[in-house]
Formats: sequence, C-alpha cells, structure tokens
Amino acid sequence: MKCLILAAGRGSRLSDKGDSKPLIPLLGLSLIERTILNAKKAGLSDFHVVTGYNGEKVRHFLDEFSRKRNIELTHIINEEWSKGNGLSVLAAKDLLNEKFILLMGDHVFDESILVRLKDERISEHEVILAVDYGIDANTLIDIDDVTKVLVGGDRISDIGKDIKKYNAYDTGIFLCTPAIFGAIEQSAASGDTSLSGGIRILAEKGQVRAFDIRNNFWIDVDDEEALRKARRKLLGGLKKTSDGPISRYLNRPISIRISKYLVRTDISPNFISFLSFILCCIGAFCFYLGGHTYFLLGAILAQAASVIDGCDGEIARLKFRGTEFGAWFDAVLDRYADAFLLFGLTYFVYSPTGNILYLFVGFMAIIGSFMNSYTADKYDGFMKKKLGEKEQFLRMGRDVRMFTIFLSAILDLRFLTLGDKVNLPFLAILFVAIVANTVNVKRMFILYKNG
Amino acid sequence: MKCLILAAGRGSRLSDKGDSKPLIPLLGLSLIERTILNAKKAGLSDFHVVTGYNGEKVRHFLDEFSRKRNIELTHIINEEWSKGNGLSVLAAKDLLNEKFILLMGDHVFDESILVRLKDERISEHEVILAVDYGIDANTLIDIDDVTKVLVGGDRISDIGKDIKKYNAYDTGIFLCTPAIFGAIEQSAASGDTSLSGGIRILAEKGQVRAFDIRNNFWIDVDDEEALRKARRKLLGGLKKTSDGPISRYLNRPISIRISKYLVRTDISPNFISFLSFILCCIGAFCFYLGGHTYFLLGAILAQAASVIDGCDGEIARLKFRGTEFGAWFDAVLDRYADAFLLFGLTYFVYSPTGNILYLFVGFMAIIGSFMNSYTADKYDGFMKKKLGEKEQFLRMGRDVRMFTIFLSAILDLRFLTLGDKVNLPFLAILFVAIVANTVNVKRMFILYKNG
Repeated sequence: MKCLILAAGRGSRLSDKGDSKPLIPLLGLSLIERTILNAKKAGLSDFHVVTGYNGEKVRHFLDEFSRKRNIELTHIINEEWSKGNGLSVLAAKDLLNEKFILLMGDHVFDESILVRLKDERISEHEVILAVDYGIDANTLIDIDDVTKVLVGGDRISDIGKDIKKYNAYDTGIFLCTPAIFGAIEQSAASGDTSLSGGIRILAEKGQVRAFDIRNNFWIDVDDEEALRKARRKLLGGLKKTSDGPISRYLNRPISIRISKYLVRTDISPNFISFLSFILCCIGAFCFYLGGHTYFLLGAILAQAASVIDGCDGEIARLKFRGTEFGAWFDAVLDRYADAFLLFGLTYFVYSPTGNILYLFVGFMAIIGSFMNSYTADKYDGFMKKKLGEKEQFLRMGRDVRMFTIFLSAILDLRFLTLGDKVNLPFLAILFVAIVANTVNVKRMFILYKNG
Repeated sequence: MKCLILAAGRGSRLSDKGDSKPLIPLLGLSLIERTILNAKKAGLSDFHVVTGYNGEKVRHFLDEFSRKRNIELTHIINEEWSKGNGLSVLAAKDLLNEKFILLMGDHVFDESILVRLKDERISEHEVILAVDYGIDANTLIDIDDVTKVLVGGDRISDIGKDIKKYNAYDTGIFLCTPAIFGAIEQSAASGDTSLSGGIRILAEKGQVRAFDIRNNFWIDVDDEEALRKARRKLLGGLKKTSDGPISRYLNRPISIRISKYLVRTDISPNFISFLSFILCCIGAFCFYLGGHTYFLLGAILAQAASVIDGCDGEIARLKFRGTEFGAWFDAVLDRYADAFLLFGLTYFVYSPTGNILYLFVGFMAIIGSFMNSYTADKYDGFMKKKLGEKEQFLRMGRDVRMFTIFLSAILDLRFLTLGDKVNLPFLAILFVAIVANTVNVKRMFILYKNG
C-alpha cells in the first residue's frame, strides 16, 4: 500500500532547532525519518513525500536516507506549502489512484495504530481517520493547536481546531481513497485549503469513519514542549514487559539514560552487544585473579555489562536498526558472557580451598543458567498457548543472576570480617545453581502435566 | 475430510499370524492402527472403517483404540465381505456424500502421498487413484497379486490384476467422489463386485485420474514376505537426513535394532529419554571416580546412552507417539547429560594434576557444546532461508562429541604406556572445545555476512 507523507510545512515554533521542520532530530533520527521508518515497520513500503518549505534541502536529505535504508521514495513538490496542507495532499492527486495511508511528517505515534488501520476495509468514497477518544486523559496534546472531531456512531460529523462540540482528537493518521482529492478541491474552491476542510466536506456526506486508536500514543511535534514529551514517551516505551525486576527498577532506568546519548552517535547495537561481552570477559578475568579488590572490580564490571546490555536493544528500537542477526548475536554473546563470569566466580571460590563441592556447584550454576535460556523460549511459547498471556512464568532472568553476583561482592566487601565465616561469593553461586535448576525442573513438570 | 478404510477381508495368507488380518502386528501396531494413525498424521480426522471377517473382534479392538488415541471412528459392517471389496465400499454409500479418501486397511505407505493427494482438486464425477510408475524399480510388490493400471496422459484407461498392457501399479490409495458408488453398483450388476470393477467402469468414461506417488513407498501386506519387507522399509525410514556421521553409520543401525524389540513393549519414548540421561549421569560419576577402569566404563556408558538416545524418537515415530513435549524433554535432558559427562571428564583430567588449564579447556568444551545446540536451530533455519536446502551446514553433533570421548577411552586403555606421554582424555576435551567453539564463531560470521 502506498503512503503519502506531508512534510511541506515550516514549523516556525521549532525554528531554533533547525531551518527545516522534517529534519529536526529526535533521539537519533529526524522527524521525517522516524515517520517513514515507523510506517515501514508497520508494513508499508511505497512512500510519497510532499516537500515544500526548504524543499531542496529536505529532498536531498531524503535521497540519501532512502538510499542508505533501501526505501522506495517518490518526491512530490508543493510550492504553495504556505497556503494550507490540503494543497500538499492535492499535489499527490495524479500519483495515487488507489487507497493509501496519509500521515503527517511531524507526528510521532505508536506503530500499532498503523498496523491495524492499514488492514481496515474501506469503501470507495470513504476516508478513515484515526481518532483519540482520550480527550481528558491525553497529556501529550496542545489543546489550542489540536484538531478536534465530533464522532457519532462510527461517523465523524464535524472537524476543526475551533469547534465547540467535540469528543475526540484528529491524530493526523488517515486511510484514504482518492475521494479525498475531490473533497479538498471543493473545499479549496470555497476558500478553505486545509486538509480538515476537505475532510469536513466528506464528513457532511457521512463518508468519514472514525478509527479508535485505543490506548496507543500519538503526538504532534509542533514546539519544544511537544518535542520533549515525544522524547520522554519514546524512551519510556523502551521498557519491556519481559524485563525482570532488577532490569525494570535498576538496569533499564540507567540504560535508557545512556541510550539517550548513544543514539546521537553512529555506534551500532551490535557493537554495544560486543562491548557488554568484553566487559564480562574482563570481569571474569578479575575473578580469576582473586582477592577482594579484583572480586569487587569484576562484580562491578559484570553489573555494568548487565546495564549496558540493555542499550543495544534500546538503540536498535529507537533507530529502527533491529535485525534478526542482532538479536541472535546478543543472545549468543550473553550466554558466553554468563558462562565466563560464572566460571571465573567458581574458580575464585574454589582455588583457595580446592574443595570439589565448590567446583560442582559452580558447574551446576553454569548449566542451570544456560538451560534457563535454552528452555525459556519454547516453554514460554508453550505456556502462552496453553494458559494464555496472563500467566506469570516462573523465571530467573540474566538481570537477577548478574545482580546476585554483584550483591555478593558488595556485601562481602562491606562485612569483610564476615567473609571468613560466611562465604558470600559461594552463596551467590549456590543461589544461582539452585534457583536456575529448580526453574528448569519445574518447567519440565509443568509442561509434562499440561502436555 | 472423511476417510474410508477397508478392513473386511480375511487375509488367509497371513492366517498363522492371527485370525484377523487388520489386527496383525507390525512393529508395535496392528495394520489397521497403523493405517489410521498414518492418515491422521497426514491430516485426516473422521474415519469410517468397514469390517467384515471376524468383525466383532476387530470392532471391539477399534473401539478401544479410538478411545485411547482419541480418534473419531464410525463402524461400517459388510457381512458380504467374502464377495469382493467393491461391496465394502458400497456399504459406506449412505454415509459419504462428499469427496473422501479411500484406503486399504492392510496397505502400509508413506504419509506424504496422502498429504499431497488430499489437497488435489477433483471434479464432481471423478476418482483419483495414486499410482506407482516405478514398475521395474519397485521391489516391494508381489507381481502376481498387484493390481496393474494403464495410464495415458493423466487418465487411467485400464485396470486389473491380469491386464497385459500396463505402465503403473494401483497403490490402493484413492481420492473419491460419491461417483464411485454408482460405478460399483453398475459393475456388480454385471457380475464384478470388486473395487477395480467399479474403477474400470469410470475409467472407460475417462473419469479416473492418475496421481503419481513419485519416490514414496507403499506396500500391500498380503503375506509374510510382504510383512518382512514392510518392517524393513519402516525401520529403514527411521534414519534422518540430519543424522551426523557417527549416528548414521554406528548409532542408528544399532538403535534401530533395539527399537525393533522395544516397540513390542509399552515402554514410552520419554522413559527411553530418561534412561539415556541416567546412563550418562552414571557415566559422569564413573569419570569422577577416576582411574582407567572407571574411565573406560564411563565412556562405554556414555556411548551406550548416545545409541539409546536414538530409540526414543524411533519408537515415537514407529508408534505415532511423538509429542512436542517429548522432543523438548529429550533435548533438555541431552543438554544436561552432555554437561554432566564433560564435567566428569574434565574433573577426571584435572584432579590428578590440579592444572587450571585443564579446568578451563573443560569449561570451554561444556559451553561450546551447549552453544552448538543453542545456536543450531536458529542458524539452520536462517541458512535454509538464505542459501536453500542443499547447503551443508557446519556442525559437530552430539553423536561426534560422545564418540570422541568413547574413542579416547578405548585408545587410552589400549596404549596404556602412551597414557603418560599423551593425555588422550584431555585431547578429547580439547578437540570438543576447539571444534564446538569454532563452529559457533563461524556461524556468527556467516550469519553476520549474510544478515
């Protein structure tokens, strides 16, 4: 399906951020890049971008971008960009003769809105507008600037910035048929060259359907305040429901702060994965060297690696650079890193005593952690199928394992006198060994009983 | 789609194997069970079975079977079973008014024939017969007893046991429309009550299409010779293309011989998986105990476990008892078993010397083997997508790992004097560590370059 994106406006309220609104950076990508990549991720592939103000510069930028990211992109030029965004839509009239998606180049929104909207059935003379019913709950909008709509049933009956009676906001996300062009022409003939003008004409004929975006976010990036809100929203969205407790409350808040800076650089997610792995290797080597100082240093490095390990995925998501290989590469390096760290820690505990029990427990921790990762995917998939999404799946994630090691080092140092009586590093390994293997055995039994 | 199965005949040539042909056992299942389960695996679910000779006993058996295996099964009784198999088909006339699959209860065949056949398009008055064009190559048939067909283009023009001119065999696997009933009635009216008689009537009108079974096997189990051939064919089919070299030439030939006996018992595939795991645990404990005798014993147990580990899957496939859980359970236990064995072996090598290098190499072997399994699925899937099926995927399977340990024990014992100069068990671990990790790193590079 084709996708028409309006990027012709000037955006004077953001002029101090750059002289072309579509090129204003937001977490490592310009607004127009983000809109296109978001739509691409939602499944669209053939992009038509209307440029106007500072058009040459924007088009030059887009040419580079489409080449680098391998995106099919057609330029549409609207010299009358200052006269109202309806004319930008009209400029595409000859190129779009089937249904298409219409987006604003400066709106940031949840990809899942588009995923659903693009598959909506639409009849020949209709336009579907994604609307936000959360008019009280939405703190992301600028109430003076937002376009309001009045929806009755599933039909939009009125639209405009200044209408008195409304029950939803216009999100600027449309599924259109070519019927939109005639409507804008009609509206323009009577003096209103805005897109809303065209929509109003169709609305009066009952040809505009409202599409509920539900709880998904959208934001019109019109001023610095909105830019800040968009940044905060995108960063907040990096949290994952699958994050373990340590990840959620400790690692993720830190890694997101780091990612915020890293997205401005060209550092690749795979490089971050590798860096995290190298930190773990150095940490493991510190454990091998022995002694409290090296132990603490190793544990700090391991915990730092655990934090940084969140950044690869965050950068990949923020910059739409996630690949199948990247996810695989990260998982493989994580497994190696886990094993190295646990081996180093085992040797740290074992070498001063030569007690084979320490060696065995360390070995059980290594195999147990490994099996946790090995069985997790299959188990989770199976449990979802059997028990539905709501079920809490028993697991001890990498975040908890790494933090256990870290904690044992911190506490061991703090109560050095305790160190001789209570072997905290050993207890850390023992904890990992017991929990990890218990999880595995429990998974086996649950699957067997439900299988 | 409904499936009609003929199981009314007497099968006098196999009467010394039992007084009901459908109940004659073949590798742990009766012929009729195998036919039904095979068809179920191919995607059929609603079975109609025509019984005749010794019908009460067969129906009683089938009731038990359908309850145990949760299969929808309708009995059709043909008291005139001795008069020709066309009447068995006719007995189902009132129950089948859409297209259906027709099978002989005593034919054993490759499930993939049915997988393809059931999706063939068929017009209203047509019958499709799966035929075997390999009339010279097929060593499974009894040339005097087989029904021959003459195919021109895709139409069958003649059929019968004694026709002179033919170019294919009738495999007894049909996709029918209710047109078959009228044809059999017409044939019976003129004295021929056989199914072939009905087919001949349709063939004369050009309404019988031939369906090529290609290289898939089928066999009509009519006498002891055919029963032997079927057994051999089914056992031979247990080899997997994914088998490693040791598995293919050493383990599989032995495990198939064992499975041949085990299928007669009620031993479950999961129990075999568990048994193999326990053998590995004992083997690992032998390694831990140290000394050449225990080392050899441990290695023999490990290799025996590696052989037996083939039986679970073989029994599951032979008796159609494969489950998602079973495959997962086996994989998880294999990983644990591998790790225990390598840990035992590492300790065996390490404990007399206290050389940390041995410990590290052993650890690398454990992590490397593990990662081989962890990365294999994703890697193979990815490579298939990218490079097609033909590509040879670099791998060192479990069979090779286990055999390396076994070999080092055998050779170490044989050249005991060598034992002091060349540490064969250590070399075995070193070999596993290097190969396994090299495979992993190579996979990463291949995926990165192709990603």
